[in-house]
Amino acid sequence: MTVFLNGRFVPEAEATISVFDRSFLYGDGLFETVRISNGKLFRLEAHLQRLEQGARFLGIKLPFAPASIASSAQQLIIANSMREALLRITLSRGVGIRGYSPKGAGQPTLVMTLHPFGAPTSESARLELADSEIGAPPRWKAHIASIRLPAGDAIAQFKTCNKLAQVLARAEAESAGADEALLLNTDGYVVEAATGNLFWIQGDTVFTPPLADGILRGITRGVVIELCGQLGLAVTEAEVTPAALKQVDAAFLSLSSYGVVGLSAIDGVLMGRSVVVTKLAQAYNALLLTECDRVP
Amino acid sequence: MTVFLNGRFVPEAEATISVFDRSFLYGDGLFETVRISNGKLFRLEAHLQRLEQGARFLGIKLPFAPASIASSAQQLIIANSMREALLRITLSRGVGIRGYSPKGAGQPTLVMTLHPFGAPTSESARLELADSEIGAPPRWKAHIASIRLPAGDAIAQFKTCNKLAQVLARAEAESAGADEALLLNTDGYVVEAATGNLFWIQGDTVFTPPLADGILRGITRGVVIELCGQLGLAVTEAEVTPAALKQVDAAFLSLSSYGVVGLSAIDGVLMGRSVVVTKLAQAYNALLLTECDRVP
Repeated sequence: MTVFLNGRFVPEAEATISVFDRSFLYGDGLFETVRISNGKLFRLEAHLQRLEQGARFLGIKLPFAPASIASSAQQLIIANSMREALLRITLSRGVGIRGYSPKGAGQPTLVMTLHPFGAPTSESARLELADSEIGAPPRWKAHIASIRLPAGDAIAQFKTCNKLAQVLARAEAESAGADEALLLNTDGYVVEAATGNLFWIQGDTVFTPPLADGILRGITRGVVIELCGQLGLAVTEAEVTPAALKQVDAAFLSLSSYGVVGLSAIDGVLMGRSVVVTKLAQAYNALLLTECDRVP
Repeated sequence: MTVFLNGRFVPEAEATISVFDRSFLYGDGLFETVRISNGKLFRLEAHLQRLEQGARFLGIKLPFAPASIASSAQQLIIANSMREALLRITLSRGVGIRGYSPKGAGQPTLVMTLHPFGAPTSESARLELADSEIGAPPRWKAHIASIRLPAGDAIAQFKTCNKLAQVLARAEAESAGADEALLLNTDGYVVEAATGNLFWIQGDTVFTPPLADGILRGITRGVVIELCGQLGLAVTEAEVTPAALKQVDAAFLSLSSYGVVGLSAIDGVLMGRSVVVTKLAQAYNALLLTECDRVP
């Protein structure tokens, strides 16, 4: 495995950073996960734009221009011969003075790594693949985690390297026999999943929590809203309590890795199916294939 | 500079970790900052106990017994000939599978580094050293940051490597010309400083926010409460709004690095002095010297 590290392509064993790096010390960094299909990066520009905006928010100078990152990412795919994979881009503030002050950290660290996609993982192993509908999306069991996200958090819109809440929520979900965790904010609303954004369907309307609640501005969330528009479906931003969510017609997640994933249960309460979720999953997969230059 | 890295003592340039380390990726780790005086580690047992409890909370196995960490830390002090310094202990979950699930991360990373203490920093440069009272503690200007901590957060009691809120709060404080940031929780109470716990004095009583508000279980907070008991001062846990805090007789912080630090201003509102803060700072310094075997 070849890794991109600050402008160099190095073997995995040599892909190391200083123990004084601030993302190791404080999670003082950002990342993006980009789906690779047919050797092409899906919606890379949107991911790089969010990375740039996040870097501006954190006051970190992006060490390479977005076009240069894009071209290095393509080289990395070729170097590793991985045409169906996930790209992780990590930007750290780098090494600075001791303590929280970001002063003196003038040399940010940029790392890119590839990860196999579609290999059996803890989630995919449990997917309800024997589904009766053709082209139906995978369905996961969700668990509402006890940990709460700060309502209205402005940092949450970016994918920062502060993900302990998500790590612990996911671990709690797995202990409960679920595939993924749903997270509450401090106002008591279910606002997102550990790895993606939340949507639900009631009647003819698709709902999703507002960004102002303190959640990730998901690239795939944006794609799903775009597809709803194309399919003539209204999308409404709304807040939802755990009790209300368990009563909706159907619920699903949007993830940069798996696209559209249905929820088969929440805290053991079985969730309904909806043809809308299947349509969105199909539309998402078609868009992925089209944009990545592959004939469906 | 010699660094302790997973059981080995290595030169700083060789003290590197994998780009796949989970503390680099997600801040999935814990740390402790311990004051070294006269070559001795102040209250190391309490720090190691919190580290152990935090590791249990996060589900990370401590790779070395506390006694072994303590002895390695002493060796590190000798190897670097640093008798007045700060020790940082970092425990990361190490390398695991891709994604938030902590599964497969069976080899945690333990790093120990030393940092000079008392050298001119952005804070100490601004300390009100020309103080009229003999033995009076340093005083910092505080700024109440816009970012909010999740009220009641159970993770907050441990020093995790998710410190982006503190990093951004500190940066905001420095931009506002202050030395340190105070943080609000999502309930609107001032709960702690970026680097330490908050105390304030009203009449004969010392107040500090309750741990249940979602704050760090500070080792120095514990020492200050202990000293209040010895000085016959009542300590009451209470919640405080920004407006109320600006009206108190005096306010101060407790930090593992600097001990007791008074607040000279909050958001530009000048804060009063109190003989109680001076007494506590003197008692803290005396305790530090006594426990670290140095004749005052």
